[in-house]
Amino acid sequence: MREMKEFTTIEQMEADTAKLKEIACGLCVETFEDRKAAQQPQCKFGEDGICCRICSMGPCRVTPKAPYGICGADAHAIAGRHYLRMAAAGSAAHSDHAREIAHVLHKTSAAGPYTIKDPGKLLSIAAEWDIETEGRDLYDVAHEVAEVGLMEFGKPFGTLRMLCRGTEERQKVWEDEQIAPRAIDREVATSLHMTNMGNTADAEVLVRQSLRVGMADGWGGSMIGTDFTDILFGTPTVRTTTGNLGVLEENQINIVIHGHDPCFSEMIVLAAESKELIDYARGKGAQGINIAGLCCTANEATMRHGVRMAGNFLQQENALLTGAVEMMCVDVQCIFPALGRLQDCFHTKFITTSPICRIPGSTYVEFTADDAEHAYDKAKALVKEAIDNYENRKRDRIFIPTHTQEAVVGYPTGQIIAELDGVTNSHLGDDPRGSYKPAIDAIKAGVIRGAVAMVGCNNPKVRADYSHIEIMKELLANDILVVGSGCAAQAATKAGLLRYDAKELCGAGLKRVCTLVGIPPVLHMGACVDISRMMLLVTGIAKNWGIDTTQLPIVGCAPEWMSEKAVAIANYVVATGLDVYLGIEPQVKGSSQMMELITQGTRAIAGAGYVINKDPHELVRSIVDGIEAKRAALGI
Amino acid sequence: MREMKEFTTIEQMEADTAKLKEIACGLCVETFEDRKAAQQPQCKFGEDGICCRICSMGPCRVTPKAPYGICGADAHAIAGRHYLRMAAAGSAAHSDHAREIAHVLHKTSAAGPYTIKDPGKLLSIAAEWDIETEGRDLYDVAHEVAEVGLMEFGKPFGTLRMLCRGTEERQKVWEDEQIAPRAIDREVATSLHMTNMGNTADAEVLVRQSLRVGMADGWGGSMIGTDFTDILFGTPTVRTTTGNLGVLEENQINIVIHGHDPCFSEMIVLAAESKELIDYARGKGAQGINIAGLCCTANEATMRHGVRMAGNFLQQENALLTGAVEMMCVDVQCIFPALGRLQDCFHTKFITTSPICRIPGSTYVEFTADDAEHAYDKAKALVKEAIDNYENRKRDRIFIPTHTQEAVVGYPTGQIIAELDGVTNSHLGDDPRGSYKPAIDAIKAGVIRGAVAMVGCNNPKVRADYSHIEIMKELLANDILVVGSGCAAQAATKAGLLRYDAKELCGAGLKRVCTLVGIPPVLHMGACVDISRMMLLVTGIAKNWGIDTTQLPIVGCAPEWMSEKAVAIANYVVATGLDVYLGIEPQVKGSSQMMELITQGTRAIAGAGYVINKDPHELVRSIVDGIEAKRAALGI
Repeated sequence: MREMKEFTTIEQMEADTAKLKEIACGLCVETFEDRKAAQQPQCKFGEDGICCRICSMGPCRVTPKAPYGICGADAHAIAGRHYLRMAAAGSAAHSDHAREIAHVLHKTSAAGPYTIKDPGKLLSIAAEWDIETEGRDLYDVAHEVAEVGLMEFGKPFGTLRMLCRGTEERQKVWEDEQIAPRAIDREVATSLHMTNMGNTADAEVLVRQSLRVGMADGWGGSMIGTDFTDILFGTPTVRTTTGNLGVLEENQINIVIHGHDPCFSEMIVLAAESKELIDYARGKGAQGINIAGLCCTANEATMRHGVRMAGNFLQQENALLTGAVEMMCVDVQCIFPALGRLQDCFHTKFITTSPICRIPGSTYVEFTADDAEHAYDKAKALVKEAIDNYENRKRDRIFIPTHTQEAVVGYPTGQIIAELDGVTNSHLGDDPRGSYKPAIDAIKAGVIRGAVAMVGCNNPKVRADYSHIEIMKELLANDILVVGSGCAAQAATKAGLLRYDAKELCGAGLKRVCTLVGIPPVLHMGACVDISRMMLLVTGIAKNWGIDTTQLPIVGCAPEWMSEKAVAIANYVVATGLDVYLGIEPQVKGSSQMMELITQGTRAIAGAGYVINKDPHELVRSIVDGIEAKRAALGI
Repeated sequence: MREMKEFTTIEQMEADTAKLKEIACGLCVETFEDRKAAQQPQCKFGEDGICCRICSMGPCRVTPKAPYGICGADAHAIAGRHYLRMAAAGSAAHSDHAREIAHVLHKTSAAGPYTIKDPGKLLSIAAEWDIETEGRDLYDVAHEVAEVGLMEFGKPFGTLRMLCRGTEERQKVWEDEQIAPRAIDREVATSLHMTNMGNTADAEVLVRQSLRVGMADGWGGSMIGTDFTDILFGTPTVRTTTGNLGVLEENQINIVIHGHDPCFSEMIVLAAESKELIDYARGKGAQGINIAGLCCTANEATMRHGVRMAGNFLQQENALLTGAVEMMCVDVQCIFPALGRLQDCFHTKFITTSPICRIPGSTYVEFTADDAEHAYDKAKALVKEAIDNYENRKRDRIFIPTHTQEAVVGYPTGQIIAELDGVTNSHLGDDPRGSYKPAIDAIKAGVIRGAVAMVGCNNPKVRADYSHIEIMKELLANDILVVGSGCAAQAATKAGLLRYDAKELCGAGLKRVCTLVGIPPVLHMGACVDISRMMLLVTGIAKNWGIDTTQLPIVGCAPEWMSEKAVAIANYVVATGLDVYLGIEPQVKGSSQMMELITQGTRAIAGAGYVINKDPHELVRSIVDGIEAKRAALGI
């Protein structure tokens, strides 16, 4: 591994991207920058959310001269319906990912290939759900837990089980405001029904349902997905790894795993560790098999195996453009269809694996829970195919940027609390390890002013990763701890903010905490489904503090969000009582009511709302102000 | 009731609309025609389905110079995703309507207000689902049937129960082609996941899922909804009623019920029949209480109570413009948000009742299964409020068009077969009543050349009701029996095609059948959810004939469709093996692949596809040709 003493600047990252772009130009293939340029100017009706395509009387677009769609829907109804549909689709995506994990849990057996890696977590969820464990085979318990989890998607009566994990105050809010979700899929289907032609046209009602369907994700699908993933593949622990495109190796078989659902990528990682295949790779002249992650699959695999991370969302074409990737294997979500065309210029094999994500130009090798028993064998066959492809590399087309950064990853909720335990003088050794008290004391004392969950995607509407990194640096300087997930966490990785010595960027208080505890100031918490972990973290802090989550000096920030999943997330974070700071405008600008509802109206419902600013420096200023205001309200 | 000897022409209907439009102009309020005019030209990207708003990198629009969205999605992926989302939303809408019915069934009790009106149907479904009935209280059985039905929306394993009602050949097709739906809501959520950013970009896969999510409607939600509605409110039987705006009464309390879910409107109908309220109305100077239906609620209420029908989708503003409506009560779907503004010019009270359909300007009085026990009392309070509103009529603003038509309604599957039984000479009295044989013999003999299910909405993209009526008349002239539902059935009603003497429009064969059997040549089958009845009718014919549905000279036609529900319906009708003739283009024109897939590609999957033609005369010509080709293939 390379020695690194310096952080990587955004300019250095961009220089690497520019060189890869030159390669693309040489091959006459387009990348997202070209496609973005060709799309300019983007349709203002769509950007403002006032274009309706919900029935075939339309499309209708609202203007001062045509203020109503043909049915009479106004800008508020049109923008509100589209917004709710985004939240519903995001919730459906996260939750459907979790459903697949639950089905895999249902297929576990001691004989594998899918086994129980965290029996403790399994038993604790079984206890939470009143499932008998005494004297039962672990796998019988696992299958019953899976069945009960699967019923959360479709049960005819009642609200979600995991809501009882919330603070008492939150549970009351969710109940009173009618945003406590019923079965996950029901909230998705109901959202589509409400937004179907001739149904709800009241923006406030649409926003309320957006909170509810978001909750079905954060306190339903994503939370089940995260817990079940831990049971299946182990609860993450702290590991050191490396990030950025430089993790691709010139003399190894490079296999990039990309997507979100770890059921597939885990098998690839295991297969690549088999002696048989490593020997096979060496026999083909390679020094080994190098698995590198992209997007949230990278986050999942690095937290559990230390798999190195090639990059985030807007780096997916770059990985292929290095010419050094034998195989790119994807599962679901955030996969550019462009990869299907791009692979044609290289020897890279582009493998799709999920019935949810079928892309022209790819080779489809199905991995689903239905065929779980053959998953490992199929993964081995794919790895072997990648090895066989090594000899097809066009060596004159290889360019691997050299920048990499060391990164400390793997801080799920329990780990963060365990690490922070010991930070303040009030902790005298008598409290059990894992107490929230030290963390709370550190916030109360102002050593840490607060915390920000940095989440979300990349979006070519803004300079890639720039907002993520600028905001994080400024938060650290203000003694605000950052927990990161998804593409935000990877931006931090690439810049070097997940290194222990990133504490040098912090104010005196946070720096002292990082030194005392031995943590980086940006804590890598996982993939985008893992934002449910953040909800449990803030809930734990609030409960132990004796206040509600909405009072905490803790907020969420998604400066470069892009996916509908982010809309679902933003809604459940707000419903959990945390303000959300956005750097990309939700597409509702054409409706004054919707703008008011998402920034102010939700405060009356859930005690939190959005703050939107496209300028990252102004956005971070408002975050710091927001956190200080929360502190002032608490009298700390 | 007025004596009528003549049919009503489209020109006569338009003259009535024009007079009501004058009233609107006088009051400076807009109607759909104004809004349509203001929306011209409509966005061509949207019309062609090549505008993508699925993530906030967009909107992206495909052109020759910009053939890809920012993610790399091409026209086929973009149009395919939007098409699948329309099917999913349509399926969600129909099925969520059915879910509410199932919850009401779960709340039935002998004490009411919701009781079991068709115990025979309840017991037959209980038998079909292996639910114990022997010695059990009817309501216990009903509650268990409701629970099993509700599980069809969310069960974690297996495919839908009602698929086994299909022909053996169909069941094999659904299984082999992987279009047999799993739980209803799961197919909806999975469809959203597949179309979420970075997932499926393969148009063929998107079309296949459209068939599957459509099946989840037709052989799931709609079929359950229809059966449970029959159990709750009685299986429809033949009745004579009246249609068109002339059913509003100058000297009565006019209450218009509008929407789809009969749980609410049934209570209003019952309340209006109470002596107490009729007396109260008389006390206020009215001659009585006149309930009139609009849209599918009209179809539901007329089939079970003979409630008169004021009109279909594009008549909803007209009803209000008469100035004679004391109250318009709506439940879900196809309700113009415009009604909220329009009521301001009149004394009309506009009442919304479902959490699914909240509209600004309305008064919200919630009716849900949760509060089923108070439904009748709440309905009585609403009717009383309508009566109290009678004195607020602005008598100088009243204009009720005089056209009405008599209509024979209420032909569910069993009724049609029972009526047709007896039509041919081959039927000598030995077969049990309700045999399919006479119907099949009539088709085989060519007395009836075939049948067309005329379904779907109105759409201002074409002359309202013109396509419906022109096509039906031409079909009748060609000895093709018509079964109608939804707005199509109401177009027939308004024209007079549901009259017995409409047989005068038929060819010699069909006329003879109508005379012998005593049926009108257009059989009113109910609301849009009742298209599931049509699937069972064709399945029954096919099974008794010993062939598959796709071989029958029977097709579907939706010449004026508008709603996403129609996309779901079209998909399940095709999946059931019947060609679908469309007069409005699905918004996929910008993708050659999608156009090929929906018109030809599905034929390789399900043996049927769309035929699209905006000219109703050309469309009906192709229907007749299609039916004759099916006959030729059968050698009849």
